[in-house]
Amino acid sequence: MDFFFKPQSIAVIGATANPFKGGNAILKNLIAGFRGGIYPVNPRYEEIEGLTCYPSVKDVPGDIDLSIVFVPARQVPEAVAACADRKIPGVIIESGGFAETGADGGRLQAALIAMAKTTGIRLWGPNCMGLVDAVNGHVFSFLDPRAFPSLMPGRVSMVVQSGMLSAGFLVDIMTHGVMGISKVCSVGNKIDVDECDLLPWLLADPDTDVVGLYLESLLDGRRFLEICRQAAKPIVILKGGKSAKGAQAAMSHTASLAGDSRIIAGAFAQAGIVEASDFKQMMDLCRTLGSVPPRHTGGPGRIAVLTFSGGAGIVSADFLAAKGLEVAELSAATKKDIGRLFPEWMPVSNPVDLWPAMERHAEDEVDVINEALAAAFADPQVDAVFIHAFVGNFRIRLDLEDVSRQVKATGKPVFIWLLGRRDDAFQFQVRARELGIPVFPELGRAVECMAAVFGSR
Amino acid sequence: MDFFFKPQSIAVIGATANPFKGGNAILKNLIAGFRGGIYPVNPRYEEIEGLTCYPSVKDVPGDIDLSIVFVPARQVPEAVAACADRKIPGVIIESGGFAETGADGGRLQAALIAMAKTTGIRLWGPNCMGLVDAVNGHVFSFLDPRAFPSLMPGRVSMVVQSGMLSAGFLVDIMTHGVMGISKVCSVGNKIDVDECDLLPWLLADPDTDVVGLYLESLLDGRRFLEICRQAAKPIVILKGGKSAKGAQAAMSHTASLAGDSRIIAGAFAQAGIVEASDFKQMMDLCRTLGSVPPRHTGGPGRIAVLTFSGGAGIVSADFLAAKGLEVAELSAATKKDIGRLFPEWMPVSNPVDLWPAMERHAEDEVDVINEALAAAFADPQVDAVFIHAFVGNFRIRLDLEDVSRQVKATGKPVFIWLLGRRDDAFQFQVRARELGIPVFPELGRAVECMAAVFGSR
Repeated sequence: MDFFFKPQSIAVIGATANPFKGGNAILKNLIAGFRGGIYPVNPRYEEIEGLTCYPSVKDVPGDIDLSIVFVPARQVPEAVAACADRKIPGVIIESGGFAETGADGGRLQAALIAMAKTTGIRLWGPNCMGLVDAVNGHVFSFLDPRAFPSLMPGRVSMVVQSGMLSAGFLVDIMTHGVMGISKVCSVGNKIDVDECDLLPWLLADPDTDVVGLYLESLLDGRRFLEICRQAAKPIVILKGGKSAKGAQAAMSHTASLAGDSRIIAGAFAQAGIVEASDFKQMMDLCRTLGSVPPRHTGGPGRIAVLTFSGGAGIVSADFLAAKGLEVAELSAATKKDIGRLFPEWMPVSNPVDLWPAMERHAEDEVDVINEALAAAFADPQVDAVFIHAFVGNFRIRLDLEDVSRQVKATGKPVFIWLLGRRDDAFQFQVRARELGIPVFPELGRAVECMAAVFGSR
Repeated sequence: MDFFFKPQSIAVIGATANPFKGGNAILKNLIAGFRGGIYPVNPRYEEIEGLTCYPSVKDVPGDIDLSIVFVPARQVPEAVAACADRKIPGVIIESGGFAETGADGGRLQAALIAMAKTTGIRLWGPNCMGLVDAVNGHVFSFLDPRAFPSLMPGRVSMVVQSGMLSAGFLVDIMTHGVMGISKVCSVGNKIDVDECDLLPWLLADPDTDVVGLYLESLLDGRRFLEICRQAAKPIVILKGGKSAKGAQAAMSHTASLAGDSRIIAGAFAQAGIVEASDFKQMMDLCRTLGSVPPRHTGGPGRIAVLTFSGGAGIVSADFLAAKGLEVAELSAATKKDIGRLFPEWMPVSNPVDLWPAMERHAEDEVDVINEALAAAFADPQVDAVFIHAFVGNFRIRLDLEDVSRQVKATGKPVFIWLLGRRDDAFQFQVRARELGIPVFPELGRAVECMAAVFGSR
């Protein structure tokens, strides 16, 4: 599969000078980020975007590793045949108009499948948005270059059966500073290349720490689950079409036949897959497991909660209980250390409400937050620390660099629930992401992701 | 209770010139937004922030409707006694150090309770953050004026047993453009004034359309539920301390004894209360029910889903099924109207994936989104429309003013799932809020709030 991910040269079949067409966007995206040879193919042009344009792939000089095809569906079989003749190993077909559109499209799709079988050429798509590789700056897709922001590299890769997840959705999560990405593979009708091809490649990819999948169908469930079972990296799946109406919609979207959702859910759990229920939640699970590898402690994860709000501490305890995590029983030493920060009347219990300690030390030099954090991290009865941060409040100053040092020194993860002014919160989120510290604007989501790390969802 | 919400003059007992103290913040907040008489009380000053300071409330000339007390706990009974002597009808005690700190504080609290009983003075608090009234610009609280942004008025009122919810949390939701507020009442230990006093007042308040409550205890559950049952406005409750550890933490936070969570949940549902599980979700439920009053159609709400992503349509259908809503069966007329926009091969089904229609009309003047919306709104088999919006994509232009006109013309609500570039998304969210259109960054949350509107949670 390397020719899809690391091609030296790419032909764009259906390249065009019309800036409103996908065939132009594909070319512009390649020019912007791909450093290998780029060969526009279209008999109607001699040059597009300053590059020589060829009437057919036959006419392109030198080797081609990969073709990206964006021509009307009825012309696709001929284009693919030309690629096979030239021994091009892989083709990403981004055009729609195949099985998802009815019988005529179905026949075209069948012709492509036959071609892949007889020639050995690997076909990705059709009806897809190709590949985005933020680490290498590759956008092999008809994504509008004006609408797409600069790529934010990260260590989460995805296989998605929805163009939205490699388009508007990425714009959202990247501009909100939430998550960077490694590769996002939009697989569409997956007539040949599917999750069973891509997942092993991504699991072996040194630039990928976790793989998220949005799938509407599992073509070879047995093989897929076997791949997941043996995976050394966490895998998160959002399965679309779990309800009757959802399954019906999946049929017309990517011609997918959905299976029984309960059987699938059970199989996912047995294979160690984390199942997601929503798009952003899937990203939250992926980015968490990307920066905090799963750790199964043999018992429920024991969490120290450091808060500045009694109410938030209480609701945290409720969520921890609901998600099978434990409110850590702090050791005597920790209670003593934290107790020194507290007003005299106040016993130390977990969740730890630091507000009274902050009030007590409002006018001295005691760094309540940092000292309480150190005590919690040092406690052998604590597996992870959950901090509530409020940016924009002058008295609550959580130093992310300090937190990061403590995480590294103790090997224990930290999770942060963040509230505060919009711009301050954004800066905090961005810095935390750089440090590999998962931050969440919703308390319940933070605990949900924590539970995924400790295997207790 | 009008003296709490509409006082003509306020005494601040514990006012101080020290800008690091809450007694200074209270004064500054009053000066910034309260138009009545303001009387700082502190024997150590003659003037604070340009206002004459009095040694005691006894010395203040003229009437006082309300006192705000922020002195050490042991001095509070004396301060309250002075207020009672002056016939001041209400006191907000923001100081901590009462039952939540142990036996000594408990005795002080008991003294206050006795005083309220014998004199009839109404006591709000202690251990609370008072009142924020964004409609009238009142901040009767020691909130740091530097950390608190300009108030965003709205029609959601809250009663909260957590200072955070009237502090950092409000900063978060207001600066993110998500929700404006009417009144937020932080009630702390609620020794006298409690939810049974405040809720009826808010239910009668013309500036309030919905009431949200975060409670750790229900002191008079029977009366409270009766108030809710008879309420003409929606009520949303987040109950803290549902788990054993959570209940334990609630004891030390506001000295609350939590009841059995299952019994409480059943009673809430019977009284028509919408139960929330998390803080932001509670706000989302409140702001939704504030702009889209509940409508019980006698059957499950029938939802038309307009999307630009097949995958998002499928996951929407899955969520609708999970939350007891129906994917509307579109009428023949609607299918015909929408079908005219579609490419020939494509049948119309709900969820409606508009992307192929957008592609077909990429270069003509047909307004696919607006026409599809009109068809969905006009359908007698549709109770509400769920639109997926992607801001920052040049081809998907959802005109909020158009949407708002259609909502008003048909009386059917619309719910929007929003993705897109951070700044564009923020502007969209702000405008939608002004128009009373609920917008959500998470698909599942949108459906959850929709379900609350149709009574199917």
